[in-house]
This record gives sequence, structure tokens and C-alpha cells, in this order.
Amino acid sequence: MPRILHPKAPPRPKWQHQALAELQQLVGFPSISTEPQYAGAVRACAMWLADHLRGIGLDGVRVFETPRHPVVYAEKLVGPHKPTLLVYGHYDVQPVAPVAAWTVPPFGGLVRGNKLYGRGASDDKGQLFTHVKALQLLLAGGQPLPLNVKLLLEGEEEIGSPNLGAFVRQHRRLLRADWAVLSDTNLISVEQPSLTYGLRGSLAAELTVQGPQAELHSGIFGGAVLNPLQALSEMLAALHDADGRVAIPGFYDAVLPASVAERAYLHRHGPPDAQLLREAQVGQGWGEPGYSLYERTTLRPSLSITGLSGGYQGEGVKSVVPPQASAKLSFRLAPGQDPHEVERQLRAYVQRLTPPQVQATLRSQLHAPPYTVDPAHPVMQAAAQAYAEGFGRAPVLQRSGGTIPVVSLFEQHLGIPTVLMGFGLPNDRKHGPDEFLYLPNFWRGIRTSLTFLRRLGRFPTTSLS
Amino acid sequence: MPRILHPKAPPRPKWQHQALAELQQLVGFPSISTEPQYAGAVRACAMWLADHLRGIGLDGVRVFETPRHPVVYAEKLVGPHKPTLLVYGHYDVQPVAPVAAWTVPPFGGLVRGNKLYGRGASDDKGQLFTHVKALQLLLAGGQPLPLNVKLLLEGEEEIGSPNLGAFVRQHRRLLRADWAVLSDTNLISVEQPSLTYGLRGSLAAELTVQGPQAELHSGIFGGAVLNPLQALSEMLAALHDADGRVAIPGFYDAVLPASVAERAYLHRHGPPDAQLLREAQVGQGWGEPGYSLYERTTLRPSLSITGLSGGYQGEGVKSVVPPQASAKLSFRLAPGQDPHEVERQLRAYVQRLTPPQVQATLRSQLHAPPYTVDPAHPVMQAAAQAYAEGFGRAPVLQRSGGTIPVVSLFEQHLGIPTVLMGFGLPNDRKHGPDEFLYLPNFWRGIRTSLTFLRRLGRFPTTSLS
Repeated sequence: MPRILHPKAPPRPKWQHQALAELQQLVGFPSISTEPQYAGAVRACAMWLADHLRGIGLDGVRVFETPRHPVVYAEKLVGPHKPTLLVYGHYDVQPVAPVAAWTVPPFGGLVRGNKLYGRGASDDKGQLFTHVKALQLLLAGGQPLPLNVKLLLEGEEEIGSPNLGAFVRQHRRLLRADWAVLSDTNLISVEQPSLTYGLRGSLAAELTVQGPQAELHSGIFGGAVLNPLQALSEMLAALHDADGRVAIPGFYDAVLPASVAERAYLHRHGPPDAQLLREAQVGQGWGEPGYSLYERTTLRPSLSITGLSGGYQGEGVKSVVPPQASAKLSFRLAPGQDPHEVERQLRAYVQRLTPPQVQATLRSQLHAPPYTVDPAHPVMQAAAQAYAEGFGRAPVLQRSGGTIPVVSLFEQHLGIPTVLMGFGLPNDRKHGPDEFLYLPNFWRGIRTSLTFLRRLGRFPTTSLS
Repeated sequence: MPRILHPKAPPRPKWQHQALAELQQLVGFPSISTEPQYAGAVRACAMWLADHLRGIGLDGVRVFETPRHPVVYAEKLVGPHKPTLLVYGHYDVQPVAPVAAWTVPPFGGLVRGNKLYGRGASDDKGQLFTHVKALQLLLAGGQPLPLNVKLLLEGEEEIGSPNLGAFVRQHRRLLRADWAVLSDTNLISVEQPSLTYGLRGSLAAELTVQGPQAELHSGIFGGAVLNPLQALSEMLAALHDADGRVAIPGFYDAVLPASVAERAYLHRHGPPDAQLLREAQVGQGWGEPGYSLYERTTLRPSLSITGLSGGYQGEGVKSVVPPQASAKLSFRLAPGQDPHEVERQLRAYVQRLTPPQVQATLRSQLHAPPYTVDPAHPVMQAAAQAYAEGFGRAPVLQRSGGTIPVVSLFEQHLGIPTVLMGFGLPNDRKHGPDEFLYLPNFWRGIRTSLTFLRRLGRFPTTSLS
């Protein structure tokens, strides 16, 4: 029987073998920040990172305690004559449920073909590792770094960074820098690099409707007592109009309209509707009329019900009018919107919608303003040139529909812009089963980071002068 | 220190002590039919009952296997010259969750004052035991029974009696009788006996809405993809109109309007709105305009959402557009309605309501027609006289909002009417925490059953002739 010969990939240099093995170790920690039973794994991951950063030659490595999960810090300072870059990443990951939907071990770090699989492989362990490996390559060269570098690796990003605000405020001196860089966004497609200049803001809230004090028999009382599950459904249904617009009064008032030029640019360079539908694996789009799907998810705000719960959820039938029901709401906010103002609008509307027979309570959980950085800023220009060298192709500018609360913290407390230098793919299954890192872009990302560090080293110093 | 002397209750006869101890044993079995891990306890309870029935002198005691939980049968036949009564009861019970809401052990059978506490104490172990104890008293007298008696004790009532239809059909000869009696309903209030002549029917269904194939990131796709939780909420909201009527087209068409005389009777003798609100522990009523709360829960149909589920239900925030959401629906059907026809109406409406971006599926789980027995039927008259002797007060006639599927099975397969001779209380917490049996009515119930058996013994025989 003749053996089939596969075309051979070019041999991998030794440092790449080493980097892959290390990344597999890093992905191996089940550092799920939202589930208390994984707190030990989150801590173990922080310790491993601290050791690793020491090992590649960084200084001042510290693991800071917070009320929940630790922050890892490291630095390499070459002197006040050079500018300073703050590298941010997060080593915590999303839960893996439903595990049955995975076809590979969620924390196995399995390499198959061009992909390394595992929860966090792209979001954000693989992406933060591009900068770590770039620094290692520079340090291994024996020359001083071209600029001062500080690393801040967080363990609470996936739970909304509840303690990072206080940490940044408290360590303002330690974290002082000229710019920050953060790799936790996507390329526009597998081969087309892109530089993100805008993020949507976030407001998360939980709406609970309380009806009878205790479960009632639905035979005896059904039809005479308002069912809180029904009341909640009716309130949730009133949050959107029939066209797919958010129906909360005043909701769109503060949204800044995008310029004709920006819309034209995004239309030309952004993903067409068909691509977004393919990535979402759905047949038909939905949402606010008058905007493309890309615009609906970036320039325009949205409201998603992310969880729904109440009554009997087991097998079969339980004949009850349940006492309460609740829904989790996730707003994405467009430029101009303020999460606190949107919360006020939501509260007023919920109050108006609540029928007199039930009580509604609203608990807000996350407030992150939207973020835009001027693409003409010199640091953005340097990032664009680094991408061009790392990927062999100039990046396009894009907005992301996601939220990264830390960029607002850096803006507010350190007064610096953040470069969103993402290396993920739109379909690399972040937050879902079979998440993977596309390895060719891992190597290109390391090259891009290297170039970025070198280019920034030529900038005049500002904050440390 | 002077001792406080409590007024003494009259001393309890020995047979009552014995009966209480036996009922405590019966309540002690955690015979929860819906939870598979309790299947052993359901069976043990059936075995205990079979032994007990043999012990009091019944014949032909058998434990019949079904695909799930056993049926216990016993009989005492005095001959074809006497009529035959079929006594039905169920020994399975509802789940006890949430256990933390109980202030007594759910399966302790604790007697405190006038109450015996425990899951199933009222529904239905205590109530079925009234007939068992009445039979025991008659048999202990040494005389032949005044009529033929057959007992059918089921272990699947709380899961909708999935195997009872087949059982009754298959054992039509064995179960042949003139009438059936069933004690699983309520008195209208603690001292006022009542005879139930109507039950609502039931249709249970589960509605599932499927959106994207996999969880999507709500930042990346929120606003461009229809969220199945939102679609479900909007569909559920459309099931009622703003006034509280069920909005499914045709839903009320087949409902038989009650006569002016019946409405007047129920108004005069039924619980006023204030009492129903007190029992439900809610401040305000709700529902179909033009009817009292009692009418809304008995003469009129209703639709309750009994469970709601979808997306992330854990602590904190998970930023997803979930792939699916589902709701459990429980219809109570009024005289004239057919559960299969209502299912067809629901299916057509759901199809009309389903947005093109999602798929909806409906799985029906229970079909029980409504039931009415003519209060002028001789067996109902005998029951009324038995109540008058047992409670010292003539019963009022009432309709119940609940459903007891077995009465339709007896009507359909045995061609006999069922007397609903309930001894429960509206507030004895059936299906809830701290369920109890009100003992004075347990003793009155036994007296009522005794009288009923004696009175029926004077009727001419029909079916066994």
C-alpha cells in the first residue's frame, strides 16, 4: 500500500518549539475567574506567569493580592531617557460549560494543524503571550530594551474587572506610562490585519420580578394571580420595538452619529453582512433598520438578554405559579452613551412597565463607557506600521462591538491611550466550545509586537521625563 | 412556681392512636414520583400499603408493575347482589424543594396540636387513608361489608399518571364498579364541607426557541442576530392580551358558558375574592375581566408559565447570545374545551408568532379533559348525606380549578362517575413547604367515608348484576 506523502511544513526554529510548549502549559490552567471552585487554579496560573516573567529576565515581578484574583506585575526599565509602554493582558478565562459541546479537552492545549485548542487559547493567553515572547526575544539578544516596558496581567477580566479600577488608582505611580497596548481583539479576517480604534461600552443588569411570596398551585390559583414569569416576559418583550430598536425612552438620544466618511470607510473595509452571518452561523440578520450588521454591532448600541430563569426547570411538569423570575441584561453602548445614564433610563422604564401585582428590582453589575482612540495618534501610526511588517500587509481600521473596561481605566487614571493590537480571529470560538489560537498569526503577532517595541523606542519620552 | 394547667383534650380512643401511628409511617416514605433517585422509596411505600391492606383484612392484594411506579390493588367482595365502589388514591408525592423553606422534617410525620406535618400528609396519603380506616372499622365489626369495595392506589399521580390509562384499560374487568370515589380535593374552608362536582382539564407543553447553533459573544454579535431569549419573551408576551385574557385565537370558542343559576350558586357559596387573595398571600388579583377570582380559577380556562430557562443563570455576567431558550406552559381548561383542540390552536399561533430568524418547537406533555358530574346524581346525593353526618353540616357544592386526570379515565374506560370527596384544606400547603393534614377533618373524613359506604350498600346493584 503506497504511503501518502504530506507536503512538509518548513522546520520550526527551536525558540518556537519552546514557546508552543510554554503556551500549552499556560492554557493548561483552568483559570476560570467566575467560578469560585477554580480560584486555586487562577492563583496557580498567576504564580506560573510570575515565574515565567522572572525567567525571561524581567524585573520587579510581583503578584499583587486583590479581594478576589491576583494581578501579576513585571517591568524592565532602561531609564528615564526612554518612553514607557504598559502591556496589559488577562490570564483568566471564561467557563467551559457546556463541556459536552467540546471535541477536544478544554484545558489540553492540543496542537492540531495550524491551531492550538483550549479555553483561553485566543482570549487572552495566546494573545498576551505574543508580547511576552517578543520581550523574551529582545532580552535574549543581549542588548538593552529599546524602551521601558511594564506588564500588567489581570485575573478578573472575564468577570468585569471588579478590582482593577481600585488597583490602577492605587498604583498610579508604578503604572505610569506613555501608552498602553492590549491584545484582546480580532483581525478582520484570517489574513487581513486590522487595528481597532473603537469599542462599545457595557452595562450589565439583572431584572428580578417578585410575585406571590411562595409557590402556588397553578390549578387552584392559575388565572387569578399574576404570574411573575408572565410579567417578566411581557416586560422583556417591551424592551424592543417591532423593528428591532431598543424601546427604552431616550436610549438613542446621546448616541453620536458617525460621520459620512467613517461610515463609508467601515463599509469599504469592514465585514459585509454575509460574512458576519457566516461567522455567527445564522441564516438571517436582525436588528435596527438603516444600518448594516457591522454598524449595528459597532456604531450602534444593542441590548441582549443573556440569561432567563424562573419556576420549574427540571424534567416533566410541575404545576405551579412560581414566586419569582429573573433575566440578565447586557447592553452594548455606542459612542456618546453613558452607562450610568442608560441605567437611569432603564430604571425609569422598568418602573413604568411593572404591573401593580408584582415587584421588580434591578441590580446593575458593570458600567463601562464606550471608547474611541484617534487613528491619527502617533502611537496608532506606529502600531499600523508594525502590523504592516508583522503581517506583510497594512492593517485596516475597525471598530469592535465588544467592551474592554480597562481602556477607560487607563484613560481616566493614567491619562494615556491604549492601542488595541488584536491577533484573534472572528471565528476562533472565544467564549465558546473548541476555542483555538490560529498559530500562523501567533508568530506574526510576535513579529508585530517586536516591531512595535522597536518603533516606540524611537519616540521621545513624555511621562517619565 | 405554679404549673400552668392546659385544658385537656378528650382522650383519644385506641384505634385513633393506632391510625395516627400508621399514617406517620405512611408519610415517612419519601415517595417522590418525579425524581428517579426516589424510585426505591416509591416502591417501598407501595409494599407497605399492600401489607397494611392485607393486615386489615382485604383480599386479592396485588402490587402491579407498570413501566415506572407500581399500582396497589385490593378488594373485598361480598357478592353480586351488592353494588361495587372503586376507591382511588395516590401514594406518591410532590418534590420537597426548596427544603430550606420547611420548618419541620418533610418526611417526619410530626404531630403538633391539630396537625400532622409532612409531604403528602394531605395530598394524598392522609386523604386516601380515611377510606382505608373506614374499611378497617367496618371489617373489625365482624359483619360483612355493606357493599363490594375495590381499592386502586396509584404511584404516578404527581407526574400526570402516564401509565394509569393503559392500566385501567387493561384491567377493565378487575376494576368494574358502579361508582368511584376519590379524596384529593379541598373543603371550602376549615369547617364547611363541600362536594366538588367539577374539575378543570389540563394541557402541559414545553416551547423551545432555537437561535444560533452555538453561543455567540454578545459584544461581537449583539444587535445583529435575533436572541432566542428575546424571541421567546416576545412570544410568551403575546399569549395574553393587555386585559389578562388568553390571546390564542379561538381559545375561548368552545368554553361552555355557565348558567345564571350556577354562577349565582357559586357566588353565594364559593370563596369571595378576598379569601382567595388571602390564601394566595397576594395583595391584588389579576385575570380575565368580568369574572370573580373563584370563577377565573374554575369556570374559566387559564394559562400559566410554570418554568423559564435559557442562557447563563449562574452568578455574575456571561456575555453571550445563547443558542436557545424554553418555557413550560400549563393550561387549565374549562368545561367544553378539548386539550387536543387547544394544542392545535396553540401550535398554529406559535407558528404565526415565530420570527423567521429562529425555530420554535412545541412538545406537549399532558392532555386531560375537564370533568363535571351532575350534582343530582344519586351517588352525589349519598355523598352529600354522608358529609352531613360526618361533619355535622351539609356540604356546599363547588368547582375545583385543579385537574385529576383519573376521573376521565374512569368515565371513558369504566363508564362510571367519580365522587370527589375531598377532605383537604385550601391552605394546607399541598405542593409547598410545611404541608399538613388537619386532624379533626381526618377523623370527620373517616366518619364520612363510613357513612358513605353504608348508604351505598342500600343502593341496587347495577354493573355486577
